[in-house]
Amino acid sequence: MRESEIISLFFRHLQKQGDLPLGDDAGAIRLDDEWLVATNDMLVRKTDVPDIMTPEQVGFKAVTMNVSDVAAMGARPVGFLFSLGIPDDLGAGYLEGVAKGIGKALDFYGVPVLSADTNEADDLIIDGIALGTTKKPLTRSGAKPGEIICATGDLGRALAGLLAWRKGLEISPSLRRALYEKFLEPKARVREGMALNGIASAAIDISDGLSKELHILSKMSNVGIEIYPNRLPIREEVFYVAKELGEDPVMLALASGEEFELVFTLPEGFSEIPDFNCTPIGRTLKGGGVYITTEEKREEMPLLGWEHLASHL
Amino acid sequence: MRESEIISLFFRHLQKQGDLPLGDDAGAIRLDDEWLVATNDMLVRKTDVPDIMTPEQVGFKAVTMNVSDVAAMGARPVGFLFSLGIPDDLGAGYLEGVAKGIGKALDFYGVPVLSADTNEADDLIIDGIALGTTKKPLTRSGAKPGEIICATGDLGRALAGLLAWRKGLEISPSLRRALYEKFLEPKARVREGMALNGIASAAIDISDGLSKELHILSKMSNVGIEIYPNRLPIREEVFYVAKELGEDPVMLALASGEEFELVFTLPEGFSEIPDFNCTPIGRTLKGGGVYITTEEKREEMPLLGWEHLASHL
Repeated sequence: MRESEIISLFFRHLQKQGDLPLGDDAGAIRLDDEWLVATNDMLVRKTDVPDIMTPEQVGFKAVTMNVSDVAAMGARPVGFLFSLGIPDDLGAGYLEGVAKGIGKALDFYGVPVLSADTNEADDLIIDGIALGTTKKPLTRSGAKPGEIICATGDLGRALAGLLAWRKGLEISPSLRRALYEKFLEPKARVREGMALNGIASAAIDISDGLSKELHILSKMSNVGIEIYPNRLPIREEVFYVAKELGEDPVMLALASGEEFELVFTLPEGFSEIPDFNCTPIGRTLKGGGVYITTEEKREEMPLLGWEHLASHL
Repeated sequence: MRESEIISLFFRHLQKQGDLPLGDDAGAIRLDDEWLVATNDMLVRKTDVPDIMTPEQVGFKAVTMNVSDVAAMGARPVGFLFSLGIPDDLGAGYLEGVAKGIGKALDFYGVPVLSADTNEADDLIIDGIALGTTKKPLTRSGAKPGEIICATGDLGRALAGLLAWRKGLEISPSLRRALYEKFLEPKARVREGMALNGIASAAIDISDGLSKELHILSKMSNVGIEIYPNRLPIREEVFYVAKELGEDPVMLALASGEEFELVFTLPEGFSEIPDFNCTPIGRTLKGGGVYITTEEKREEMPLLGWEHLASHL
């Protein structure tokens, strides 16, 4: 079964949901005078962990991927939990690396661990759970037509790094460092997410690639989206890899998953400009659809990205 | 590595913890004017699911085992999350059963689902996460010497049911029903946990067997414990199985895991008697140690129960 089929199977049986409709970066419930957001994301070594990743990077990423969803809700991360599935033959050194990575990430994000569980399993599995609080969640559904779409940071290095490694591309150490920093050690945009709460009308984090996130944003906010490809914040390292591999750098930026950048919309007449590194990449439109617009033409944006249950690349 | 070694390895690297010391049924952080408790427990089919269990029972149990930890903290369960690892060859029918069981449990406990994640894995894995809120958490560390120790419900049917099934014991349908109800469809004591908050001085739920939980309670509250074996609420069905197998029914009751009953301590001079089915089974003492006391003698209670990473039985 495909992931989407599994999800719809489950939601036929789960009537009682939180105080936000499901489909956002995290679920949410209203407490006394704030909201609690909660999200979980399971990392399975066989499908989610490239061999090149150190155990410390694996542990760090298990935290980042969850904290990023809390950030996309404009919430402050307040707690982390994790469950481990540990195969018999996993060495103590590997496990220690994972522990170190989780600890480093929790220090980095300033988040306490609330609970942990260990089990025997056939493959290394880390299920991470992040909790956050906010006065009002920033959702995927608040964008209106005529707004500016922005992205934090830059796009494409995660996929370019993966491809450079997979294809054994010969690249300089500094180029490799720039790519691998994002491919192997991505960071969640926590400060940015909290700063966007109250400024942005909608936000989503890039887990499955910009293209896929834009399609979700469009559908959930019920707006069209057009992106100006020459505005995308693509670093020269991505152009280099694209050229070497005969790929389109824009397509790399659109397909690159696990970037953990935030994509957000700024309402018309917004007065505060976010005080962090971000780039306007397009705008929202009346109607629906996601488009790539250049001076010459407007084309539908292909739905790139990966589903976890499909094989990557 | 044993589970305890893995846990200590991790906690060397995880400095920042919640607002309660780790080691309770759930972790906790203080929010504005209440506490959030959070707990997670991963179910791995190979080690945690007897073949006789239906997929619906598996789904129900994945909720119960987490909600039970929230109940043991005296908190109201307010949200559930789950991550699934799904093997390729798992049929849609099995998965639908799991979904139905999770849905049924969430209805039963009145808890909304906040977030879910699905992944491909080598074995069926359900990582459940439960969140709860309370004005003040009920912990494992609040018992004082001279208090009465009580248990909800009855003890031993879960293990007696497992043994009856494993050993192929010939038993009557009504006996089987009584045992399997607890062995395959245990329920968390949510109402009882909330009622105990403000009455009990300490509480713990029975996941790994009464004996193991009493040893934890003793250590965390820094009290001795003596249990009167003839006071243990053991139903006749457990006596029957024990006799057939040449086992001591008291040992079955002490070792029986996943009972999800609550064990709690009532302070001296408590005025309110809980208005639910519970039984005084012993008392707390000065000093340490866990004992079984009869009119004839006082013996140290063996540390029975199972560690998840060891093989059951």
